[in-house]
Amino acid sequence: MPTRPGQTDPERAAAWAQRRIDVGFRIRTLRTELGITQEALALKSGVTRNVLIDVEHGRRSLLYERLFDLADALGVPVTELMQNP
Amino acid sequence: MPTRPGQTDPERAAAWAQRRIDVGFRIRTLRTELGITQEALALKSGVTRNVLIDVEHGRRSLLYERLFDLADALGVPVTELMQNP
Repeated sequence: MPTRPGQTDPERAAAWAQRRIDVGFRIRTLRTELGITQEALALKSGVTRNVLIDVEHGRRSLLYERLFDLADALGVPVTELMQNP
Repeated sequence: MPTRPGQTDPERAAAWAQRRIDVGFRIRTLRTELGITQEALALKSGVTRNVLIDVEHGRRSLLYERLFDLADALGVPVTELMQNP
């Protein structure tokens, strides 16, 4: 069966899922430590609240430049969001 | 004229474009310093060569988990790719 280009091997897909969970958890942790609501972070970052909820729960990714917006809104360097847990 | 949700203000769009140029340039610099061809990095990272070319030239973004794949393939922490130039 010819593999469609970009058909992802399960291992890589699982690794992506774990990355989304780690980064999402990191965003949520920083946000709650700073006492910022999801609404406030959404407003400040330009990421809509529904997307932010999914991102925090690792259900959804973002284009990497949006991580800079979230980091700016949280007042941390973007590298903070990409730290290993 | 009602703004479509997500209609982005020019300033934010310009900031995204600059982020893509900075990160793309960073990836290209690291790749060339390591003497790795685009083909080799594409193969190792799972990012197709055409996409990699566009990313390096700042013409295209990636979902953030793909940056982890590129960083792994380059043998650097992902935070290296997000450093300010």
